[in-house]
Amino acid sequence: MTQPTKRMELGISTFLDASPDPVTGEAISHAERMRRAVEEIVLADQVGLDVYGIGEHHRANYAASSPAVILAAAASTTKHIRLSSAVTVLSSADPVRVYQDFATLDGLSNGRAEIMAGRGSFIESFPLFGYSLEDYDELFEEHLELLLAVRASEKVSWRGGHRPAFDNLGIYPRAVQEPLPVWIASGGTPESAVRAGTLGLPITFAIIGGMPERFAPLVSLYKEAAARAGHDPSKLQIASHSHGFISDTNEQAAELYYPSTHAAMNKIGRERGWPPYTRESFDGARSLRGRSMSGIRNMSQRKSFFYARILVWIGSSYMSMSAHCLTEKPFVPLSTSAPRLRRSYTRKLPVWRPTNRSSFIYNDCAQ
Amino acid sequence: MTQPTKRMELGISTFLDASPDPVTGEAISHAERMRRAVEEIVLADQVGLDVYGIGEHHRANYAASSPAVILAAAASTTKHIRLSSAVTVLSSADPVRVYQDFATLDGLSNGRAEIMAGRGSFIESFPLFGYSLEDYDELFEEHLELLLAVRASEKVSWRGGHRPAFDNLGIYPRAVQEPLPVWIASGGTPESAVRAGTLGLPITFAIIGGMPERFAPLVSLYKEAAARAGHDPSKLQIASHSHGFISDTNEQAAELYYPSTHAAMNKIGRERGWPPYTRESFDGARSLRGRSMSGIRNMSQRKSFFYARILVWIGSSYMSMSAHCLTEKPFVPLSTSAPRLRRSYTRKLPVWRPTNRSSFIYNDCAQ
Repeated sequence: MTQPTKRMELGISTFLDASPDPVTGEAISHAERMRRAVEEIVLADQVGLDVYGIGEHHRANYAASSPAVILAAAASTTKHIRLSSAVTVLSSADPVRVYQDFATLDGLSNGRAEIMAGRGSFIESFPLFGYSLEDYDELFEEHLELLLAVRASEKVSWRGGHRPAFDNLGIYPRAVQEPLPVWIASGGTPESAVRAGTLGLPITFAIIGGMPERFAPLVSLYKEAAARAGHDPSKLQIASHSHGFISDTNEQAAELYYPSTHAAMNKIGRERGWPPYTRESFDGARSLRGRSMSGIRNMSQRKSFFYARILVWIGSSYMSMSAHCLTEKPFVPLSTSAPRLRRSYTRKLPVWRPTNRSSFIYNDCAQ
Repeated sequence: MTQPTKRMELGISTFLDASPDPVTGEAISHAERMRRAVEEIVLADQVGLDVYGIGEHHRANYAASSPAVILAAAASTTKHIRLSSAVTVLSSADPVRVYQDFATLDGLSNGRAEIMAGRGSFIESFPLFGYSLEDYDELFEEHLELLLAVRASEKVSWRGGHRPAFDNLGIYPRAVQEPLPVWIASGGTPESAVRAGTLGLPITFAIIGGMPERFAPLVSLYKEAAARAGHDPSKLQIASHSHGFISDTNEQAAELYYPSTHAAMNKIGRERGWPPYTRESFDGARSLRGRSMSGIRNMSQRKSFFYARILVWIGSSYMSMSAHCLTEKPFVPLSTSAPRLRRSYTRKLPVWRPTNRSSFIYNDCAQ
């Protein structure tokens, strides 16, 4: 007797990086960057990807501060692809507005919206919207609680420490999906894994530093917390984000992807006091045990299964999908590689039981 | 020598009313209502209307609490039509988020977004987002000031009484249009007219009660305030909103439009202590001097010119366009009447110099 299996899912996420190309110096506008993203979502839908995510930022080099608005632009021209934030910085947002924006997106797309809620990796939104970084964790917990309350019922009463209270007010529109999916985005802290598990919410691990192996214990924590809270383990969903880029050869993938990765990682690294990002870091990440999905299709596929093996002992699985660099003629790598990846993964799916939605690779190459 | 003239503009605005049909009892979901609106925007663009506006509400019978998200769903499938809120309840919104949402819409539509800012006719959003009705006017003034500051420059510092302060922060994405249009929506108070004139902002009068004639002095006030503040009067823009419905005969228009108007006006009237809305009120509004644009095309056109005559002595002009009731097979009245109205108005345009954008009729019939 076999358990029912869900198929794995593949997707792309992006921060809509609009930094100048580090090789050519060319830059595109935020407006052009977001319009290209909309074309990309339409293509991703056509070639069979399952999900497209856009991350909220408030920085000059990223074009997306309002993911729901951008995703909505693809709602009426796509049929199947799920439209997600990746992430919504919930700590510094009003949870009622977040619900309304994504319930609206859910209506427009007839039930394909998702919220991925995170505390935020960048911190610009905190001073901009009047929140204190001292309340970083508390804000997230409180805002998540309110978001889940709004999701659970049309009329809500609310009392909290950081957001004005209200009594028995209706919140509209209501989402088509019941419930509207709310994922927890985690950078890899045990607290996030336990919180998501306890609430029975799906979780996405952003594997953008270190080795993927270190996430295996977090998946354990997540599942244990879920079991303790009485959630059905077969219904939990786990996803991962990783950087990546697919091309015809490993070398070509590396050469095309390195300059923008180098520029982006060093830009962030300077702000955060990281050591300089080098070609060695890049190549290390491309190795089998590394975190980057860059390479040719087979390489990425092999790595995905390697990742899945790391996690399969705890009954979970995940994988990633290539992104493409929009400084190149857009969409060629995506349109040629996605269906093949989709077919090969789909054939293998019964191996990973109970399998999960998972997807996502940051499309962080310049422009 | 003639002054350069702008052509008049025509449009539709809607609150996405999803109340049950008062005749048949049938209701549609919020999701279906907003998807139909997106189809309607696409059609309005094809038939040559100039603007489509969606109003923000937080009530069970209206589907639009996030106008920018809904408008974005039409951004990539339309070419010319301008996409506006009608209105954005600025008093209870964060002006930074409002700018970001509409700058994003502006990018997606390549420069076709507009914000119409109002204090809000309904009050649900105040308790929901933690604002006090005691600050009704002050909140609007302060939020408008911040919105205009964000619109004016990428880096902004802010100190105010009702919204957290911040210092020299960048706000992204930037709008394509410079500046992103910000209209003032007025229900007809002298204060609104003077405020908009002083700031040199375009103004929209919602003529949904009383007689249109009473707006003539407000237009004077608006223009005088603008002149005192040194704004070029030829660059001011004035628009009006009115309810309306066009059909093949006056009688048919009345019969189709009366039930939903009656239901909607009495629903609001019960909350606000208005006298009952009667057939006499409805027919009075349909008369030449009344405020409703319901009727056949010629009737509506004649009334528009009558309105324009009321205002022409102060150098302004405006008109309206029919809406259609979505309980009927959608789009037929719109697609057949819009091009004809557009042509007839366009022929007459040089008469009204300097003419203004103006447009809008509420599409408030049930569903």
